[in-house]
Amino acid sequence: MTGWTVLVTGGAGYIGSHSIIELMSAGHEVIVVDSFVNARSECLKRVESIVGRSIPAYHIDIRNEAQLSEVFQKHTIDAVIHFAALKAVGESVSKPLMYYENNLIGTISLLKAMSNHGVKRLVFSSSATVYGTPQYLPLDERHPVGGCTNPYGKTKLMMEEILRDLQSAEPDWSVVVLRYFNPIGAHKSGTIGEDPNGVPNNLMPYVSQVAVGRRPEVTVFGNKYDTPDGTGVRDYIHVCDLASGHVAALAKLQQSGFRVYNLGTGKGCSVLELIKAMEAASGRPIPYKIGPARAGDVASVYSDPSLAAAELNWRAERGLDEMCADSWRWQSINPNGFDSSA
Amino acid sequence: MTGWTVLVTGGAGYIGSHSIIELMSAGHEVIVVDSFVNARSECLKRVESIVGRSIPAYHIDIRNEAQLSEVFQKHTIDAVIHFAALKAVGESVSKPLMYYENNLIGTISLLKAMSNHGVKRLVFSSSATVYGTPQYLPLDERHPVGGCTNPYGKTKLMMEEILRDLQSAEPDWSVVVLRYFNPIGAHKSGTIGEDPNGVPNNLMPYVSQVAVGRRPEVTVFGNKYDTPDGTGVRDYIHVCDLASGHVAALAKLQQSGFRVYNLGTGKGCSVLELIKAMEAASGRPIPYKIGPARAGDVASVYSDPSLAAAELNWRAERGLDEMCADSWRWQSINPNGFDSSA
Repeated sequence: MTGWTVLVTGGAGYIGSHSIIELMSAGHEVIVVDSFVNARSECLKRVESIVGRSIPAYHIDIRNEAQLSEVFQKHTIDAVIHFAALKAVGESVSKPLMYYENNLIGTISLLKAMSNHGVKRLVFSSSATVYGTPQYLPLDERHPVGGCTNPYGKTKLMMEEILRDLQSAEPDWSVVVLRYFNPIGAHKSGTIGEDPNGVPNNLMPYVSQVAVGRRPEVTVFGNKYDTPDGTGVRDYIHVCDLASGHVAALAKLQQSGFRVYNLGTGKGCSVLELIKAMEAASGRPIPYKIGPARAGDVASVYSDPSLAAAELNWRAERGLDEMCADSWRWQSINPNGFDSSA
Repeated sequence: MTGWTVLVTGGAGYIGSHSIIELMSAGHEVIVVDSFVNARSECLKRVESIVGRSIPAYHIDIRNEAQLSEVFQKHTIDAVIHFAALKAVGESVSKPLMYYENNLIGTISLLKAMSNHGVKRLVFSSSATVYGTPQYLPLDERHPVGGCTNPYGKTKLMMEEILRDLQSAEPDWSVVVLRYFNPIGAHKSGTIGEDPNGVPNNLMPYVSQVAVGRRPEVTVFGNKYDTPDGTGVRDYIHVCDLASGHVAALAKLQQSGFRVYNLGTGKGCSVLELIKAMEAASGRPIPYKIGPARAGDVASVYSDPSLAAAELNWRAERGLDEMCADSWRWQSINPNGFDSSA
């Protein structure tokens, strides 16, 4: 399956930009919509350099139904990949209304535009956060959802529910929900990567910024967990593997239905293991201190990725060393993200 | 506590209109906002007759932020009671996007308007449906929520979550969530009551329409439930009791916080008991037939209303015979609802 025209919302973001490269490599055309609230137009320029072609991009907030509708009128769209959302857990706790408004209204607006223009194929960016505290490990797709305590995670679950109900009411829709574990790494070129606004919420960009000298040390939140070295264990996955998962999911959209897949490696990695691997990749010491565990954090979260292997014929292929090498290449060439070039 | 100016969304609806009467009787001023999608302006005229005063009313869809903002600019509003929502379970299954759009976007829009105008007191119309299938009876407010299978019920739970997170982020908000059981009955005057569009979704208006001759017979969905007579048991509550619960909730808004109360009688009543009580109230036979049980229906649902008694000093006071007498008065004087007067 090739040659689709795919509308990518949030296409200038971290996962969106890497996915565009995989989509275009697989022979698809891409149309980008992005509000550029948490993304940079420079990122898309670099993606265009990597793929060697220009990419139509619209500076639109997807909540704007009229502007979004124009994009659907102008292009014949075969499918949508919906990345656009606010994603900072802490900010969602302090500004819940902003999160509900952006994520829910944005998604409903997108679905209305799709419906109005007869586009019924969607890949949705969800998150392992919808599982809440694991009742067992590894997490498979049959694990109960809910119990998520922050508004960010709740919006992801609510959006899944909206999609599930829509597909149930209109069975000719095909929806694939992808539940991401912890994407890190960057494109091999070192020209695009994760570039969070302000203090990073996620571990890898924080560690990278310490390695490159932007921050003095990493705080490790808790080392008394029931894990091999006491620090939290997560399922880190290379963003390019995650991106290729979207190409595989797109192929699945040829069949109508509502499907959910984990995208993870199935392997847990502790905070200290990640720091050590980044020290090796960067050749630099990464100072850290142990801080108190954070409310809501759990010891271990990792995936059972076998359903995606069976049904999408997709597997994560890159290991921790490659993830760290690629994160470091991006960070060292671009110490201030898209704000600077080395 | 008296003399507040209360914005009532959905004020021309069944519960809204009855609540306005109780609010005004308690010394509050009321401003109504209603889209009149599921309500009639005739209802508000009759409310004005009952209370002997005119009521400012705006024909606005609360999703329209600009129009809603004008109302907040024009009036100094002390608190909001938010009834406005789509509420037909079956329709929500066939048109989920319409429900998510109306209920979620409407609520978010309202909260933004409140926030922008410094109004931080809210009573929210929720439903016992958020409890899903009862794990125990009677249902108290500590019963787990979720597991609701229809989009209508999901929107109610999502709106509760949005309010909970907002109040948690901004602790000076005061929010009371009222989880209604099954309102029936009508104002003593017989001039206002439940007037559903099309085929009634709820039992009482259906039974009433059979009693008055608009429909030939009631279908009872299942008589093999584990209940005294085999038919489903619900907690019917007089709409005027429910309305007075809102006055009590309003007083609670003087303290900031997030609070949840059941509004029910605590007493279960079966379908056949309700039909018999309506036969007695109307003096007419009400033919019924037994049909198959409906997917998703449960045997018994009734409340533990003791928290509202303890904290709001509120109790339902009217019994089944009074509920039926009042439903019948409304239905017999207005066989076609607000479309006709006898």
